[in-house]
Amino acid sequence: MNPHSHHSPTAHDNTASTGTGSGTTPPLQFTPLRTALRHELSPAAVLDSTAEIAPYMEERRNLFPGQGRLVVRPADTAEVVTTVRLCQQHGFCVVPQAGNTGTVGGGSPRSVDEVVLSVERMTALHELDAEEGTLTVAAGMTLAAAQEAAAQAGWYLPLSLPSQAECRIGGNLATNAGGLNVVRYGCARDLTLGLEVVLADGRIWSDLSGLRKDNSRYDLRNLFIGSEGTLGIITAAKLRLFPPPRRRRVALLALPSLEPALPLVRQLQAESGDAVVAAELMSAAALAMGQLLEQTPPTPIAAAPWYLLLELASPDPRADLDSGIAAVLAQAAAAGSILDSQQAADATDIARLWQLRTAIPDGQRYAGASIKQDISVRPSDLAHFLPQALAAVAAYDPAIRPCIFGHVGDGNLHFNLSQPEGADSAAFTAQQPHLNRIIHDLVIQFGGSIAAEHGVGQLRRAELARCADPLSAELMSRIKEALDPCGLFNPGKKLYAP
Amino acid sequence: MNPHSHHSPTAHDNTASTGTGSGTTPPLQFTPLRTALRHELSPAAVLDSTAEIAPYMEERRNLFPGQGRLVVRPADTAEVVTTVRLCQQHGFCVVPQAGNTGTVGGGSPRSVDEVVLSVERMTALHELDAEEGTLTVAAGMTLAAAQEAAAQAGWYLPLSLPSQAECRIGGNLATNAGGLNVVRYGCARDLTLGLEVVLADGRIWSDLSGLRKDNSRYDLRNLFIGSEGTLGIITAAKLRLFPPPRRRRVALLALPSLEPALPLVRQLQAESGDAVVAAELMSAAALAMGQLLEQTPPTPIAAAPWYLLLELASPDPRADLDSGIAAVLAQAAAAGSILDSQQAADATDIARLWQLRTAIPDGQRYAGASIKQDISVRPSDLAHFLPQALAAVAAYDPAIRPCIFGHVGDGNLHFNLSQPEGADSAAFTAQQPHLNRIIHDLVIQFGGSIAAEHGVGQLRRAELARCADPLSAELMSRIKEALDPCGLFNPGKKLYAP
Repeated sequence: MNPHSHHSPTAHDNTASTGTGSGTTPPLQFTPLRTALRHELSPAAVLDSTAEIAPYMEERRNLFPGQGRLVVRPADTAEVVTTVRLCQQHGFCVVPQAGNTGTVGGGSPRSVDEVVLSVERMTALHELDAEEGTLTVAAGMTLAAAQEAAAQAGWYLPLSLPSQAECRIGGNLATNAGGLNVVRYGCARDLTLGLEVVLADGRIWSDLSGLRKDNSRYDLRNLFIGSEGTLGIITAAKLRLFPPPRRRRVALLALPSLEPALPLVRQLQAESGDAVVAAELMSAAALAMGQLLEQTPPTPIAAAPWYLLLELASPDPRADLDSGIAAVLAQAAAAGSILDSQQAADATDIARLWQLRTAIPDGQRYAGASIKQDISVRPSDLAHFLPQALAAVAAYDPAIRPCIFGHVGDGNLHFNLSQPEGADSAAFTAQQPHLNRIIHDLVIQFGGSIAAEHGVGQLRRAELARCADPLSAELMSRIKEALDPCGLFNPGKKLYAP
Repeated sequence: MNPHSHHSPTAHDNTASTGTGSGTTPPLQFTPLRTALRHELSPAAVLDSTAEIAPYMEERRNLFPGQGRLVVRPADTAEVVTTVRLCQQHGFCVVPQAGNTGTVGGGSPRSVDEVVLSVERMTALHELDAEEGTLTVAAGMTLAAAQEAAAQAGWYLPLSLPSQAECRIGGNLATNAGGLNVVRYGCARDLTLGLEVVLADGRIWSDLSGLRKDNSRYDLRNLFIGSEGTLGIITAAKLRLFPPPRRRRVALLALPSLEPALPLVRQLQAESGDAVVAAELMSAAALAMGQLLEQTPPTPIAAAPWYLLLELASPDPRADLDSGIAAVLAQAAAAGSILDSQQAADATDIARLWQLRTAIPDGQRYAGASIKQDISVRPSDLAHFLPQALAAVAAYDPAIRPCIFGHVGDGNLHFNLSQPEGADSAAFTAQQPHLNRIIHDLVIQFGGSIAAEHGVGQLRRAELARCADPLSAELMSRIKEALDPCGLFNPGKKLYAP
């Protein structure tokens, strides 16, 4: 059971052993639980063979391989309730899993006492309200399927992630996913109008009425969103849709330094009526790493230390995006804030410019081992933070190759470090704790976050316990205790109280 | 003390009597508390004479006159901490108050055991970050002052309320205020990037770093926003600013029925690149009540059962708002969805059209006593809900004069009922419980909210306990217990568990 829990779920649990990882024997209650689950649920719901459960135990970066023995795949919310109740009765914890695409070990069971509850079979489209502009889906629908359902009804779901073919709405909301369009549409929580959640005692909390205004309650919805499955299991969600973009402009800018990046974005936001939907900063080194892939096009504009990829879009078919872009770029060129620029002429061009950005993560693999951060500072602090962070890394080892790119309008960067050329990969990876500490200390000094977009999971707990606000950690623990007093849901994740 | 608290704040409290309203004697600890407050705080901070405390005991509609004996007006956050600690030590509860403009009795002390903590002296502007577009202020700054500070720096704070000259940011956030521009910019919580909160144990929780992305914590910020001072005292906030509108269009539409109202708004949102900043529905009777005021202009367009007042605005100085409006109106006229329309030609015209809407609440007073609701349904349900609600009222008493207006894009209506012409005002007001019940039952049947915009305070607790979701009430109570275990903050407000 959860080492942080103050009570055991039921008296029966006294007989359950505490798993400590691979190699321990299953606890005493394992067979009765499996039997009860098989009896109560549809046959396809319960998996226990090594081969069947293997995909659910995989963890994307293999940092936290799953230690569970049982995977339950409920067909619907009622079966989630049954699973939660039976696990509770038999002394097992529940680890919710959706697309299993997370990068912080948040969906990975840490011991044989933890049952994976996968929502992947819950893919129902409950309602698409074309008048209201809302989409209500079960938690297991993939993001791509939700986007497609919205598009077919003439609407637009702006959440956009590299993993959208595999990740699922329940996971997107449990982690408050970000992505490329946050600068215009916000994170997953901003796109959510309602939830259905199974609580630790098996009751269903429903908030799917789709009201735009309701001040009758505490904001329970936002408490569940981003709680990484530690407070309840999201089983359905009502998402807010937007009119689809009907005009689209993409431009690549070469910048002489970091400083002009944010002011350019802010000015374009103002001049375009808030039409900036993406603003991606890339260092010259990051661009070059993307170009290690054969299919990546060459940089179409002048060489520069930094590049800014901008997309503007509007649902208004008459929107004049060009004049605003032209005015801002002319002014920036006159002021020396940009060295060069190119605007995409057509859809092929748009795809070509975007490829420069999307190729970077794959290209970085060709540069050997890498140490990745998920940090944010205030957007206006980026130009101060980044030189200091790069200097600190260079002081540690000048041969390390930084590969910096990310969402400049959100102050959220992928501050990735590739190993020195020709160095030993394992030796470089072993330096992760030192490099983390150097970068995280600086982030905290700037009032930033070391878990900006991907969440905490297992990966960021120790560093948060070391350097994040202890009062927040305490309040979180008290809320966890209030909503999940037995520590049933996703133990050892998210909460970082020492 | 709070009748819902499970523990008394300290052992000393055993001697404190429980106030039951006016006329009770002050509890034993009153004099020591006053002495301690005077000793620890600046002299201007502590008020106890009847004349001095009178304004803080006034309640806007005189439904919940304050029963307190002591008002503390801290100069800063440190003095809030001192006040909270001393009240806790002496067995008094704390009722936070900001502008005291609320309409549900949320800032009114219910007994002599409750000390009003007014943030009105905390009016500091902590930071205006013109690059970042954020404004950080102490909780006592008025909304109008915050709007003005933003404007002077070339930015725009979209929160807009009739009481903006008096209401204060701390109260706006504690109640998650709505207002006229929610359809484009969201409620107060959507405009907030950070908070500073004094907790029940006197510690300060600070979240003012201004990050746009941070997934390291549960969403504690949104938990405090809208909790009506029951979980902590908001002492400062960082607000999100927007580029100021530089083009503005206002149009009044005459509608043959309710049905076209929402589709017209949604179509204009799509055709204008989300430039609809206000969409106010008014019944013919509501418009006529506003025109009981001498200065209200006559209706400038054809008579109709319903009118829609639309404002579109864009920060883009090149935005072509006219073509979109013209296209939508031409299409609507051809389809018979509008009977007539007029677009304001200049600023005077804009003011004249808006006066038709803003005059309604004052005009309604000339029609005698009124019973007011604060309800919301899904916007697309308005056209189904309203006829049923009006029929239910007519069935109860056909002479009652409904005065319906509000925010059609949010599904949030001021469903106000004026007394029958010539009837006895007191007799009509006495029917409020019956009429509430009729309307609320229908709202709940539609999955709506009976506390959409103004909050719960004392006014809506009984009806929420009767007809709202008991599971939400229970979760709220558990969170209250987790964050304010002694029931120190604002007892008898917001929480509606039976």
